[in-house]
Amino acid sequence: MIAIDKLIKKIKEMDNPTVIGLDLRYNMLPECIKSKYGTDLKSVCDAAWEYNKKLIDSVYDIIPAVKPQAAFYEMLGPDGMELLRKTCEYASDKEMFVILDAKRGDIGSTSAGYSSAYLGKTKIQDSEYSSYNVDFLTVNPYLGVDGIKPFVEDCEKYDKGIFILVKTSNPSSSELQDLKLENGDTVYEKVGSLVSDWGKDLIGEYGYSSVAAVVGATHPKQLKELREKMPHTFFLIPGYGAQRRKSGRYSISF
Amino acid sequence: MIAIDKLIKKIKEMDNPTVIGLDLRYNMLPECIKSKYGTDLKSVCDAAWEYNKKLIDSVYDIIPAVKPQAAFYEMLGPDGMELLRKTCEYASDKEMFVILDAKRGDIGSTSAGYSSAYLGKTKIQDSEYSSYNVDFLTVNPYLGVDGIKPFVEDCEKYDKGIFILVKTSNPSSSELQDLKLENGDTVYEKVGSLVSDWGKDLIGEYGYSSVAAVVGATHPKQLKELREKMPHTFFLIPGYGAQRRKSGRYSISF
Repeated sequence: MIAIDKLIKKIKEMDNPTVIGLDLRYNMLPECIKSKYGTDLKSVCDAAWEYNKKLIDSVYDIIPAVKPQAAFYEMLGPDGMELLRKTCEYASDKEMFVILDAKRGDIGSTSAGYSSAYLGKTKIQDSEYSSYNVDFLTVNPYLGVDGIKPFVEDCEKYDKGIFILVKTSNPSSSELQDLKLENGDTVYEKVGSLVSDWGKDLIGEYGYSSVAAVVGATHPKQLKELREKMPHTFFLIPGYGAQRRKSGRYSISF
Repeated sequence: MIAIDKLIKKIKEMDNPTVIGLDLRYNMLPECIKSKYGTDLKSVCDAAWEYNKKLIDSVYDIIPAVKPQAAFYEMLGPDGMELLRKTCEYASDKEMFVILDAKRGDIGSTSAGYSSAYLGKTKIQDSEYSSYNVDFLTVNPYLGVDGIKPFVEDCEKYDKGIFILVKTSNPSSSELQDLKLENGDTVYEKVGSLVSDWGKDLIGEYGYSSVAAVVGATHPKQLKELREKMPHTFFLIPGYGAQRRKSGRYSISF
C-alpha cells in the first residue's frame, strides 16, 4: 500500500484529520519538566525528549500524525538532530505517521542527498542506512522538477510521500505566490498544476497521490479553488486551529 | 565592518573570487583516507573530517571561502551534523569565510529558528549558544518577506550575510523562475528586485549588500541582465568551473 493510502486509511479509522506539531520551544515546555534539567543545549534536548515522548504517549491513539518542525531541532545543534531522529523513531514505533516539516529543495544531485537523509537510504559501499526515517517530507518547489524528481523516486521506491509548498499560510506568501502570470494564472496555481503533474504516477486506491501539497487554511478562497483544480492532490493545511498561538495544530485533508 | 565588506576585502587581498565546495561524497574521498576507516556512518564522518581538514589546510591561504552543502552532511545523520559543525569551525579558525548552502526558508517564526541555528544565537533563558556558526547562509525566497526578515535581522545584529536564490543553475530552474508575469518580467527578475529591496539597508562601503543573491553561471544571458539590474547585489555563481563533474567549484562575484 502506498504512503498516502496508509495515511488516509489511518485518518478514516481514527476519524481525525489532525496533525500535531512538534515545534520544540524551550519556553513552552512545562515547568515540571524544565525544572528537572539544566539549560545547556544537551540538557534542553533531554527535557524536550521527555516532553515529546509524553506528548506522543498522550495522543498516539487519537491523532494519526505528528509534524516535527526541523528548524527548532537544528537550533539545538547536533544534539537537536539526535533528538529529532529519536522523536521520529518513537512516533513511528507508536504507529503515528511522521511528517517532517523541513521545506528542503535544491538542484537534482543535492535533492537526492536530502531525500536519502529523510525518505530513502544513505548508501555507503554495500550498506544502506536510514539516517532519519520519516514518512513524509515538506519540499520547496522553487528549483523546478529536477529538484523534485529525486524525492518522487524515493516515494515510489520506499513508499514515502512529500508535501510540496503551493500556497503557504504566512501573510507575505502573496508576495511571490500570488503574482499574476501572463496567461492570467497566479504563480501558486501554476505550482499547483505542476504538483498534480509530478504526482500523477503515484495515485493510490483512494484517488490521491503520495505527491501532496501544502495549502494554507489562512487563505480560504484559494484553498477552495485549489481543492477543485487539484482533485487527486492531498492537502496539508497549516493555519487550521491555533497556528498563530504557535501551539502547532495542522490538518491533513482529502 | 559588515559581512559582505569583510568578504570582498578578503577576495581583493587574495585576488581570487573562488569558493571551494565541501560537497561530501563518500565515493569521492581518496582511497588513502577511506582505507583507514570503517563504513558505518560514524566512521564515514571520521574519514570525511580528515579529508575536510586536509582540504582546508591546503587551500586556506589561496581561496577565501568554503561552501559546505548541508544535504550531504544531513545524509549521515546526527554525526554528520557534528561533522558539519566542526568543519565550519575549522574553516573559520583558518580565517576562511563559511557559506553554508542549506537553502532554508519558512514562515517568519520558523525562519527565525533557522537563522538562530546558523547565523544568530539560540537563546535558552539567560544563555546564548551558536549551534553552527557560519558567515553566510543560502535562503529560498518562495515564502516572501516574512520568511526572509528574521535572517536579515540577524545579518544586521551579528554581521552575517545571506544569499537568496534568484536564478538557480539547474536545467529545470526555468520551470518556475522563467515564467512570464503579466507585466512582462519573469519570476526571477521579480525575485531579483525583491532581493535588492530587502538588502537596501545593509549596503557596505564597497557598494554591495550583505543580502546577496544566487545566480547560476549556466545562464550567462540572464546573469548579465541581472548584473545590470541589481547593481548593489553581490552574486554567488554556481556552475562556474566544474559543477557538472560535481567537483564543487563556485564563484563569488561583484
